[in-house]
This record gives sequence, structure tokens and C-alpha cells, in this order.
Amino acid sequence: MYTFDQPLGRALSVAAGSPAVVCQDRRRTYAELGSRCRRLAGAMRKLGVAPHDRVGVIALNSDRYLELYLGLPAAGYVLVPVNSRLAPAEMRAILADAGVSVLFADSDYPGAAGVGHVLRMPDDYEDLIAAADEVPLGDGVTEDDLAALFYTSGTTGAAKGAMHTHRSLVSSALHFMATWPFDQQTRWLVASPMFHTGGIIATLATVWAGGTHVIMPRFDPDLAIDLIEREAVTHTLLVPTMLAATASAQLARPRNVSSLRYLSHGASPISAETLRRARQAFPGAELLHVYGTTETTPITTLLPHEERLLDTPLIRSCGQPAVGVEVRVVDQSQDEVPPGAVGEIAVRSPSVMAGYWQKPQSTAEVMRGDWYLTGDLGYRDEDSYLYLVDRVKDMIVSGGENIYSTEVEDALATHHAVEEVAVFGVPDPRWGEVVYAVVFGRVQVEPDELVAHCREQIAGFKVPRCVELRTEPLPKSAAGKILKRDLREPHWAGRQTQVSGG
Amino acid sequence: MYTFDQPLGRALSVAAGSPAVVCQDRRRTYAELGSRCRRLAGAMRKLGVAPHDRVGVIALNSDRYLELYLGLPAAGYVLVPVNSRLAPAEMRAILADAGVSVLFADSDYPGAAGVGHVLRMPDDYEDLIAAADEVPLGDGVTEDDLAALFYTSGTTGAAKGAMHTHRSLVSSALHFMATWPFDQQTRWLVASPMFHTGGIIATLATVWAGGTHVIMPRFDPDLAIDLIEREAVTHTLLVPTMLAATASAQLARPRNVSSLRYLSHGASPISAETLRRARQAFPGAELLHVYGTTETTPITTLLPHEERLLDTPLIRSCGQPAVGVEVRVVDQSQDEVPPGAVGEIAVRSPSVMAGYWQKPQSTAEVMRGDWYLTGDLGYRDEDSYLYLVDRVKDMIVSGGENIYSTEVEDALATHHAVEEVAVFGVPDPRWGEVVYAVVFGRVQVEPDELVAHCREQIAGFKVPRCVELRTEPLPKSAAGKILKRDLREPHWAGRQTQVSGG
Repeated sequence: MYTFDQPLGRALSVAAGSPAVVCQDRRRTYAELGSRCRRLAGAMRKLGVAPHDRVGVIALNSDRYLELYLGLPAAGYVLVPVNSRLAPAEMRAILADAGVSVLFADSDYPGAAGVGHVLRMPDDYEDLIAAADEVPLGDGVTEDDLAALFYTSGTTGAAKGAMHTHRSLVSSALHFMATWPFDQQTRWLVASPMFHTGGIIATLATVWAGGTHVIMPRFDPDLAIDLIEREAVTHTLLVPTMLAATASAQLARPRNVSSLRYLSHGASPISAETLRRARQAFPGAELLHVYGTTETTPITTLLPHEERLLDTPLIRSCGQPAVGVEVRVVDQSQDEVPPGAVGEIAVRSPSVMAGYWQKPQSTAEVMRGDWYLTGDLGYRDEDSYLYLVDRVKDMIVSGGENIYSTEVEDALATHHAVEEVAVFGVPDPRWGEVVYAVVFGRVQVEPDELVAHCREQIAGFKVPRCVELRTEPLPKSAAGKILKRDLREPHWAGRQTQVSGG
Repeated sequence: MYTFDQPLGRALSVAAGSPAVVCQDRRRTYAELGSRCRRLAGAMRKLGVAPHDRVGVIALNSDRYLELYLGLPAAGYVLVPVNSRLAPAEMRAILADAGVSVLFADSDYPGAAGVGHVLRMPDDYEDLIAAADEVPLGDGVTEDDLAALFYTSGTTGAAKGAMHTHRSLVSSALHFMATWPFDQQTRWLVASPMFHTGGIIATLATVWAGGTHVIMPRFDPDLAIDLIEREAVTHTLLVPTMLAATASAQLARPRNVSSLRYLSHGASPISAETLRRARQAFPGAELLHVYGTTETTPITTLLPHEERLLDTPLIRSCGQPAVGVEVRVVDQSQDEVPPGAVGEIAVRSPSVMAGYWQKPQSTAEVMRGDWYLTGDLGYRDEDSYLYLVDRVKDMIVSGGENIYSTEVEDALATHHAVEEVAVFGVPDPRWGEVVYAVVFGRVQVEPDELVAHCREQIAGFKVPRCVELRTEPLPKSAAGKILKRDLREPHWAGRQTQVSGG
């Protein structure tokens, strides 16, 4: 069955002497990695941690993080990776919500104060491993057991723990392997944080194939290129800002990046300009757009070979449903809408989460039978290429017209003075909602000028009724996303938001 | 979940207008294939066939066979593909064992006489499709439902129906896709009979990717090459005799086969000479050895890139465990034996059968918990490359020594006079068993000369005590395998065979 011990077991069987992981000056074979994972399991048993207990980790990426990610679920525990950039109160809330009793941390995080047993990395961790006996992995573990809780970042209220089973994460690896080749020659660069599903998107696939992880503790574009060159990296995933920075660094000082054949990006929209520069900087690489969510592990739709699509309209799409994943665009009655019509994106797959940890109400809000409602609005074409439009909760309904906040934001962003922008609806007695924009300018500009600029580009009913200018950058989440909720909230104080999903 | 409607549903969603199947002068898109499968489902409902009923098919390969293979399980029925080359009594036994009430047949098979409702292809079939309404696929079907019974050919007694669920067949497709790329440009040539798992080995993978099936009703080496050229075939699987014939035909009259990138073979051992000729004939193709059984769907171990291994000892191996499949070499207590030691090959995977249809005793003989005992003897090296040695039941135990019949057969086969050979044990009061050989010679030869020939090559205790010469070719199964059982039986009449698994 599809449990975490399977990929590791195969790697130990077919590639025990091959390099499993490279991180800074540490290199380990699969035999070494396997032994350390089995000793980690032994250590947890010795500590009295019971099967199904939640074990937290707050850390930068490392080879030890990889061991925790592979070893703890394989030993029957539930891994809780926590974003190391969260505020103490946010960390505390997550650790309490998950009931974490044992935590691995690579620094003295104030938010970890409430946890009974904190083990510091590397020292406590290495002591633990050194003193432990090896315990076999996978015993008593079934594919429907929880493997990990991934907390969704808090742009939509209190963080919720997406429950992923062994099967959801292992089947997601198979779905990725059905699109991209993984074998013993694969060298995957881990550049995104491993506490997000994007950071571990290829972990089980790489291990299953007996390939190598090349792990960066923290992202730096020049270091990324040096590692690609030195370690002959073949595959990676970068978020768009990382991809833009890495492409620029390579174009400024070219190194030998010919080993890089598979270059994916995801987590947020990407500009055609960034893709073009990526193509120029990494001419030997296939470009792949991955769309997905924490709840979908994340592989949902894929747009392969973007480098061949640069001059076609398809480049704006986030691709077609991955093998193993069903995607629908539905209306509020959960009926499919025809190609071209905007609706909410719904996903069904063995890779979808089992629900939110101890939040049946939140689970019920997003699950319709086996279908997960992403909260993303979009449409598909005749061949099921998916185009994202907006978040459901960011759509504005004004005088019966649907207005996508992103469309207005895009119009404002084309003005040279606009550095950051957020658009949302505010209550209005006549229209229900009207469009409201908050702008942080890079130079002085008058609201009237921005309104006039919009008028040239979008329909009158979409033009902001009000443009509020800020002298400071807009508030952002730990993941760097603008917290539109915080900007919108004061306008709706004491009222029920009219759009669902909030 | 992993049900048959998933691959077809994805193809309909992402590639409705793309070619799904080419067979003789018929070409159909996925939209057409999907519509015909839904009408097949409607026709079965109209005929009153109940969910989970077994529906038989006896036919040569065709686009209609593909529709039956995809459509019947997706509509909730259990497909029973029957070997069209079986004797009438064998067909009758299978159809009765499976309880087949509706049968599709492309000819007037006498063995089908007992079935209540026989539908002839193409005429009855096309009438049925034309008159039926479309019914949605996948409704009420779960991944643990039976999808097909594959009857194992009768070299080991009465045919048994290996029960495959939706999940076992669908996960096997994912395991194949984790090794070889499948996409919309894939054009898979179906050359092996579709009633064997080897014939449908890539069906779900090809459909899932939205690729094209190019189907040969019956194998012919020159036609195979013509199809590769004309239809730009990219992938195929051939059994070794087919591969040898196809390579010879291409070398005799070269055509443009540059489209063929992925060339696999399986079902029986292959000679280095055949591989060399295949390499010469198809220089642009990766060669892949697939080892497996009907009970394992069949993908079990894979040896990719054999073209790079031709001059290494690895070429004698049948490869490493596929992604998603665990393989062990065990002794009679089911404990793993160390690398190099011979034992029985055991397999565990979601792709393993659920047991034999209505044969709990036969199921119990081969299943140990989740592990399936293949009845094959072999050993593995340190990197889990597997080497086959013999069938468990063909191993001879003489004076406490294990003797592999294949080793003695290989020694005899190197004599120029030997055309066909079968070696087995016969009872002996002193040694338990002694080695007995049956030979069909291509020229006159004396038994003593063959014994002397063996003595030069293998240890004395392995040399046949008796060599029986035949003037006719040895008896063979419908699949062309020598029926060693029939040759051995008279020697053991009235006794209990001493080796297990018979």
C-alpha cells in the first residue's frame, strides 16, 4: 500500500550506496539516511511518543528536516511542519491546535515556549540519533493514517491544519512522476521552504527513484546557481520571485547550468517577462507551471513545456489536470459550468486532504462529498486548460455585476507610479458593494490620475470608486502575500460579508 | 480514487479531439471512443446485465476490444478476457468458472456454446452500440471493485481467474508511468494479445496521458514495422519471439522506424543475441525488460536502458523492483534470504491481484498476508537486481542438492543437435529424485553423446540420468510454452510430487 516507508524502502533496496542528500558540507548515502531515519524512530519510541502523536518542526531547510519528513510518518507519527517566519502568537496557536508535545527546532523560537519537549537542532538531534537503536519503519502504519498536518497560511482567518494521509502524499508523488521523469540520476534542488507543500513537492518522488536531494537552508539566487553547477542539479521548483532573481543572477554572471533539465514554478502567478528571462537564463530546461493548494498536496494542474508556449495564449493558463487528479469548474450549486464560464475550481483525487484537523465546520465549508472547493475562481477552455481569475472571497459583486479584484489590480499596476495595490469591495447602500483600491506608490500620484488611468483600460463599473494612497508598503503574510483581509475588514466592521468563503 | 473511469475521463477532458485509437481502416478520437464506451454501458444496462456480472470476450485485438476493456469495468462489470487460442474444453471451463452470462466473440468459437448470450463482433456489437443510449461511466464504482478476471494459462493445472480490482490495474499504470514517459504524443503499438496482461500493459497509461493506441489484430513482423513507420509509433511491448522476428524483418528490409523510442519485452527470457539484433534494428529505442506475472498486473521488476548494458553481466537480470512494487526473495519460512542466495520471489503492491476467483484454496497457496508468491526461483544482487533461476515446481532435489532444471536445459541446448528440451525430476528410491531430460533433435544424436556433452559443462549430480529422444516437437500450451507438466506426470503417476507449488 502507499505508505511513506515504501519510497524509502525502495531507495534502500536499489540505491543503498547512492547519494541521498547533500546539504552544506554534509553528504549522506541512502544507507546512511535510512539508518538515521530508523534511529530517529527508535529515539521517539524511547522518548515515549505514542503512534499518531503530532511532532512539530520549526526549522530552515536541512538534511535533518528531510529525515524528520521521511522518518516520522514512516514510524507512525504525524509531522507538523511550522512556518519558521510566523509571529510567536501564530506559532503558539498552531502548536496548541495540533497538540504538539515534541518539537524539533533549529533556533530559540519564542512561539515554541508552550511545548513540553523541545529538541534543538543540530545538537539535541544528533545526540538523540547517536544514542538510539534502529527501529524498523512502516510497521503498523496504514495508508489511511495521518502523515502530516500542513497549516495553511493565515490570509483567511485562523490557521487550519490540512490533514494529509500517507496515501494523499504518496499518490501525489506518483502523479508528479507521471509527468516528469525521476530516476537515480535525478538531483532535486530544494530551494523553497520545506514547511510548505511546495518545498516537499518532489521529496517522495526523488526518494522513490533513488535520486539525490540538494538542500539549500535558505534561498539565495547566486548560491542556487552555484549549487546547480557544482552538484549538477537536474530538477527544481522555485516560486516566481525566486525564479526571477535566479534568472537575473545567471544572466548577470553566467555559470554552467546545462544539467538543469526540469525547472518548475508555482505558488503564485508568474509574468510572461519572468518566463522569458527564465528561458534565456536556462535554455536547456523544460519550464513547468504547477498550480495547486496545500489541501491538494499541491499538484493539481500542470502546464508542461511552457518554453514552447511563450508566444501563445496558453501561457496565461496554469495547465491541465494532472494524471490522477480531477478538476471541475462549478457554480454555487456544484454543477459544472461550460468552457469559458467562470466558476469555483473543485478538485477530487486520492491526493486531496482528509479535512482540517479538528475543524469539522471548516472542513464542511470546503468539502462537497469527495470534492474539495479551492476558493479559486477560474474558467477552462475546451481542452481543460485552466485559467485563474480571482479568489472567491475577493470577487466583488456591484450592481449585480461580478468584478474580479485581480483585473482591477492588474489595470492599476500598469501605472508607473504604482508599487503595490490591493482591490476589494466595500459596502454601498445602492450597489451592494463598490470597488475600493489601496495603493502604495513608488512616486507621488493623485487618486484622480489613477482612476482616469483605469477608465482607459477597464469597464466603468470596474473602476475604483475610491483610491486610498498609503505611504508605507501594504501589510503582508509570512509568505509575502498582501493581507487583503486586514485592509478590507475595517470597512465591513459589524456587517456580514456578502461573498462566501471569507 | 483509482477507478477505470479516471483515465478515460481525463483523456476526454484534455484530449477529446485527439486520436484515441487506430485499427486497420478505423480511426477514432477520444470523444468518439468515450461516446462508444458510454453507449456500450447503456447497451449492457438495456440487456439487463447487473453490476459485478462477468462479461466475457474471445477475440483478436481490435479497437472494439479496447472499448470493452475500458468501458465494461468503468460501467461496473467484470471483464473476462479469454485466450482465443484455447481448446473448446478449456474455453468452456473458464466461461463456466467465471459464470459468464454475456460473451462478445469475433468468431464462432465452439467453446462458447454454453454461454446464454453470445454477441458477435463486429455486427451484433455495432448494432448494440448504434441502438444504445449513453450512460455515464464510473457511477457507483469503487476502486476495490473487481474490474477483470485474467485466467492464467494452464501449465499448472486448471486455469484460475486472477481477480484484479480497479485499483490494482490503475495503480499498475501509474507504476509504469513512473518509469516511462506517456503523453499526448505517445503512440502505443498493441502487438501482443489483449487477453494477456502483457497486451493491455500500457492501455490505462496511454489513455490517461491522452495518447493513441495503434492496434494490430494479429501479429506479423512486417506489418508491425509498417505500422511503426506509417503511424509514427513511439512505444510498444513485444514478447521475445516477436521481437526477434521484428528485428530480423527490419534488418532485412529497413524502413523508417525513428519514431520508436521505447521498446519493451517480457513474458519469457530473452537471449543476448536477440537484444543485440533489436539494438541494431531499432537504434533509436530504449530497450526495457519487464518481468511480471498475470497476478502482478504484470509490472514487477524493470530493467531500463538494456541497450547500455549489453556488454555487462546486468543484461542477464530482469531488473529492479518497479516504483510502487516491493519484491523479496524468501525461503520456505518466508524469511528474506541474503543477496546471491536463491529463493522464491515474493511481491507486494497495490497492483497485486486480490486472489483467485472462487478458489480460496489456490489463493491460500500463493498468498502470505499481502505477499504474493510467484512460484519463480531467483536471487538478487546488492542493488536488488533480480535474476531468475527456475520455477519452484521445476526445481529438482536430488540427494539433498537443489538442481535448477533451466540450468540443465541450457547445457543441453548448446549441443547443435538439440532443437527442444525439457528437464525435470523423476522419482528415485535412493536420491529422492534424479534428473530426466526429454529432447527433440533437429538431427540424429545418441543419448550418450548428450550426456557426455553435459558432463563437460555442469556438475556431475546435475547431469541427466536419462535422456529420452523424441521424433516429434514437445507438447506446448496455447501460449507456446512447453508443457513440462504433461511430460513429467507419467513418471509420478500415483505419487505425491515432492516439490511444492505443483
